[in-house]
Amino acid sequence: METKIIDGKKISEEIKLEIANDTKSFQNKFLVKPGLAVVLVGNDPASSVYVRNKEKSAIDSGMRGKTINLPSTVSEQDLLNIIENLNLSNEIHGILVQLPLPSHISQEKIVEKINPIKDVDGLHPFNSGLLSAGTPRFIPATPAGIRELLIRSDFDTDGKHVAILGRSNIVGRPLANLLSMKSNGGNATVSLCHSRTNNLKDITQMADIIVAAIGIPNFVTQEMVKENAVVIDVGINRVESSLHKRGYRLVGDVEFETVKLKCKAITPVPGGVGPMTIAMLLSNTLQAAKLQCA
Amino acid sequence: METKIIDGKKISEEIKLEIANDTKSFQNKFLVKPGLAVVLVGNDPASSVYVRNKEKSAIDSGMRGKTINLPSTVSEQDLLNIIENLNLSNEIHGILVQLPLPSHISQEKIVEKINPIKDVDGLHPFNSGLLSAGTPRFIPATPAGIRELLIRSDFDTDGKHVAILGRSNIVGRPLANLLSMKSNGGNATVSLCHSRTNNLKDITQMADIIVAAIGIPNFVTQEMVKENAVVIDVGINRVESSLHKRGYRLVGDVEFETVKLKCKAITPVPGGVGPMTIAMLLSNTLQAAKLQCA
Repeated sequence: METKIIDGKKISEEIKLEIANDTKSFQNKFLVKPGLAVVLVGNDPASSVYVRNKEKSAIDSGMRGKTINLPSTVSEQDLLNIIENLNLSNEIHGILVQLPLPSHISQEKIVEKINPIKDVDGLHPFNSGLLSAGTPRFIPATPAGIRELLIRSDFDTDGKHVAILGRSNIVGRPLANLLSMKSNGGNATVSLCHSRTNNLKDITQMADIIVAAIGIPNFVTQEMVKENAVVIDVGINRVESSLHKRGYRLVGDVEFETVKLKCKAITPVPGGVGPMTIAMLLSNTLQAAKLQCA
Repeated sequence: METKIIDGKKISEEIKLEIANDTKSFQNKFLVKPGLAVVLVGNDPASSVYVRNKEKSAIDSGMRGKTINLPSTVSEQDLLNIIENLNLSNEIHGILVQLPLPSHISQEKIVEKINPIKDVDGLHPFNSGLLSAGTPRFIPATPAGIRELLIRSDFDTDGKHVAILGRSNIVGRPLANLLSMKSNGGNATVSLCHSRTNNLKDITQMADIIVAAIGIPNFVTQEMVKENAVVIDVGINRVESSLHKRGYRLVGDVEFETVKLKCKAITPVPGGVGPMTIAMLLSNTLQAAKLQCA
């Protein structure tokens, strides 16, 4: 049987269309336009691109999209005040502060300042806690996107063994809580692996689903994967390449060409998990607007 | 080599002594007596015993211990008001509402009403979220007690594979987050297993440490355990017994007599994890007092 290449771009477009329709109905009913504010501190080129895409996608879905560009010298207190204003704004239902922040600003303080009901990034401890308790409100975009990819590709997680590689607070850990919770799209047995794991290959070789989120190019190789496993690649690594005009190419955490030959399904990089994140952010923003207008 | 029987009673007594000393120093320095309030709704006999023990242990450690007994007919609003008063009290640093609550009261609302800085049970979403983010403040008593048992018995978890059986919000899930976090006493590879797990034996047979918290008597049998594993038994199950005057005996989730022959160390039931929980509650209460006086 041919390996299925999970098309995250296509799936995310479908979701964005659903969200646009849902946004229209919501707006007709409540006369409120869902609003997303994205705060960018500094002018890192990659972050700027991400932020522009988020604003544009919000607008394309019929929402209000607002980017707040701040110099990298902005004080912590000024940033806290800006968030407070967004917390109070009736036009803004979702707030996202693009991370990382300059080192003179406490990321923790900033994230905790966002009103949890507007925390569409799902990183406020209150929202992480709801997720960890199995009653999530806003699920961080990448884990939410991965679950959605699995559901919409008809890969049931119930009772399945999932090996997650990487325990970050934005991917691995919330995903572990998400996939193991009592629910549809959950009920998996999750092994959360990381840099300290001793017997990694023993675990991945048992897994029905592998999620690689460690940021090491081509880390997951063919012999680590069970025949007919489903492989989700969260990595986006730049590898030098003289063949590409920009001087690098993007590769995932999975050795795609060889692993593809052994597994049942796999996400490509780019075009797999990546495109899902904005769709999930928009979904959270619409949900935030609903919660705030209910 | 002989199997080590991990003596939770002895370890918990050591910890309580440390806490009593620490409480004395704290009180001398800040002229504040740490205070724990335990709220009990209804008169379930088992819950009444637990609550009395908590109050007594607090007092024995030099703290203020206060039990608030409420009839099972108390309204949700009255309970919320009582918690609000405890939130405002200068004499109370830790608040614990004994669960479960009668069905006319929302457990979620009550837990979320407790000021997170006084939530010594660690069940408020904000505190679960801090734990899940790897920056815990109040760790729920049972997971905290299990980690402490492992640390004080010199069983290093770093890089080890831990199979946790049971994904409850008071044991399995917070323990998974705790043991896998980047820290001393953490850094384990955790597989969180539960009733839906397909390949349970495959996972437990690989595990260096097994934690059984599923509430099924004698569920973990010898063939599920790897030679020289460490086995932590969280279960406290009543099994009918005509040999005991009270008509039952307590057994854990592990078939103690047979598993003992194969593993390196094991906790007994009773006398293993159980006695640790009150010690951890007192530790959280002292820490809460410190945070509130700092």
